[in-house]
Amino acid sequence: MSARAWALSIEDREKLIQAAFEAKEGSYSRYSNFPVGAALLAVDGTIIKGANIENASYGGTICAERTALVKAVSEGTRKFIALAVTSNVKSAISPCGMCRQFIREFCANDMPILLVPADYPQEGKVKPGSSAGGVVETTLGELLPMSFGPEDLDLPRKLQ
Amino acid sequence: MSARAWALSIEDREKLIQAAFEAKEGSYSRYSNFPVGAALLAVDGTIIKGANIENASYGGTICAERTALVKAVSEGTRKFIALAVTSNVKSAISPCGMCRQFIREFCANDMPILLVPADYPQEGKVKPGSSAGGVVETTLGELLPMSFGPEDLDLPRKLQ
Amino acid sequence: MSARAWALSIEDREKLIQAAFEAKEGSYSRYSNFPVGAALLAVDGTIIKGANIENASYGGTICAERTALVKAVSEGTRKFIALAVTSNVKSAISPCGMCRQFIREFCANDMPILLVPADYPQEGKVKPGSSAGGVVETTLGELLPMSFGPEDLDLPRKLQ
Amino acid sequence: MSARAWALSIEDREKLIQAAFEAKEGSYSRYSNFPVGAALLAVDGTIIKGANIENASYGGTICAERTALVKAVSEGTRKFIALAVTSNVKSAISPCGMCRQFIREFCANDMPILLVPADYPQEGKVKPGSSAGGVVETTLGELLPMSFGPEDLDLPRKLQ
Ligand SMILES: [Zn+2]
Ligand SMILES: [Zn+2]
Ligand SMILES: [Zn+2]
Ligand SMILES: [Zn+2]
Repeated sequence: MSARAWALSIEDREKLIQAAFEAKEGSYSRYSNFPVGAALLAVDGTIIKGANIENASYGGTICAERTALVKAVSEGTRKFIALAVTSNVKSAISPCGMCRQFIREFCANDMPILLVPADYPQEGKVKPGSSAGGVVETTLGELLPMSFGPEDLDLPRKLQ
Repeated sequence: MSARAWALSIEDREKLIQAAFEAKEGSYSRYSNFPVGAALLAVDGTIIKGANIENASYGGTICAERTALVKAVSEGTRKFIALAVTSNVKSAISPCGMCRQFIREFCANDMPILLVPADYPQEGKVKPGSSAGGVVETTLGELLPMSFGPEDLDLPRKLQ
Repeated sequence: MSARAWALSIEDREKLIQAAFEAKEGSYSRYSNFPVGAALLAVDGTIIKGANIENASYGGTICAERTALVKAVSEGTRKFIALAVTSNVKSAISPCGMCRQFIREFCANDMPILLVPADYPQEGKVKPGSSAGGVVETTLGELLPMSFGPEDLDLPRKLQ
Repeated sequence: MSARAWALSIEDREKLIQAAFEAKEGSYSRYSNFPVGAALLAVDGTIIKGANIENASYGGTICAERTALVKAVSEGTRKFIALAVTSNVKSAISPCGMCRQFIREFCANDMPILLVPADYPQEGKVKPGSSAGGVVETTLGELLPMSFGPEDLDLPRKLQ
């Protein structure tokens, strides 16, 4: 939301957004009928795509953002520049809390997260809180303030 | 964080904080050695306690906040006034993203969430961001801004 | 499935089954429309009830069996004699894998698990694999053979 | 366990096992110190690798088997021939219940699952329950009997 100097070039931004739309094609969302696509830009310039993969047990469901992250991390890519997320909804949809926590493990608080509406690029006047094309630009720190993270498990503790 | 007119009386606040400490006694945290206690104040005045229950599969672990919520909700209590969380760490520990999302299902954005240090009440000067005794007072809306919630699943969607 | 000498008296069995039906009333299953109830019999004779509590993120969903277990364990009850599970489906529905793993943390392999059809007690001839009233009687060991459990995390490991 | 006519050639079996070992290199398991690797053989002959990716929240952890599956499924690969899993433990380690449920969504009950010891190939006499090299050969149906699956959500239900 706050103004921010993006490390992301216009070309990279656009490529990442398009990758999120492509990623959505891989969704397995037969229970929610709510396909989501996510795309991660790694520091080495590669883009890793993910989609939501649901499960009959509901609780087993893995979202698009976590799919993209486990793909990347399990192949040794652990530093990221930006994340884009899109769905079939005409407003920008935000990662669930579980995904925010999962992103937290690997990404900096100021990493840009682009929430992309299904009808991107939206025409006309840019709405408050959005940037060009109707994208809501936020960061992990904005989405998960005062977060619990890896370093908290190392804090000194009272004897039980 | 922001100044807020609490619906919570000083007595209820103290009772809720003490319940979070008691709740922590029920923790099963043999893998993390990080016991957490949570206490929910329901609109009918009852307090429901929860502790983190871990699992050898790690991914199966259920946090204190979610334990308190499923206890309450499965018994028909679905309206809450406040939540308090504490651990053995001398700083205020915040709910993980998964719990924030779970709280989101049942609680209003302005519901107070009290993050209570292990050595509550802390003596001396109140630190910035804290209130009396070292408690950090926040809300669900502050912890999970721009959240994805039940109503998002009902939004009109682009044809796939 | 195999014949087994039940530790469970007929009275306790019936009380546990009825508790599972009552537990189902507490279900919050607006996404699946699939309410489930579970009831745990503890060694001290108490019965702990649980219902499935769903979440807009799907992945955050907690099943009835896990709800019952976290309720019990967080209050210090950690030894169990039997579990009963029921739903609105006229055949016996079995716990998901996540719940089997969660049960594994606290229950013995030979603990009876009763899968109760919605129309219990079913009239007429007992079907193969079922016992009186149409209940399928199984155990954790049958549902989760060769399981991964707490002791596996203590096995000696090859240096990485 | 049971004798079975493998669709899996000796070459494919060996390639899959080696892929599981390679996959383990991608593990992010700083909390459990228990790296796991998994490899899926798809019907088109490709092998998809996964490793466990842990999370400070513990409950957010995603196992190797699920990592491999979301990688494959999100890229359109949804039919599988076999799965191999390995860890740093000198005995064959089995998938957790959560993973068994996740596998259930996409794989047939008779799909071979190979549990591979860290010191594969083990020398000497083949132990009971194992096959060449110390591998335990099982199937999804053996690991998750009487499973709850997608079709159960479509069963006719009693009116609530
Ligand atoms: Zn998510
Ligand atoms: Zn949590
Ligand atoms: Zn379950
Ligand atoms: Zn697993």
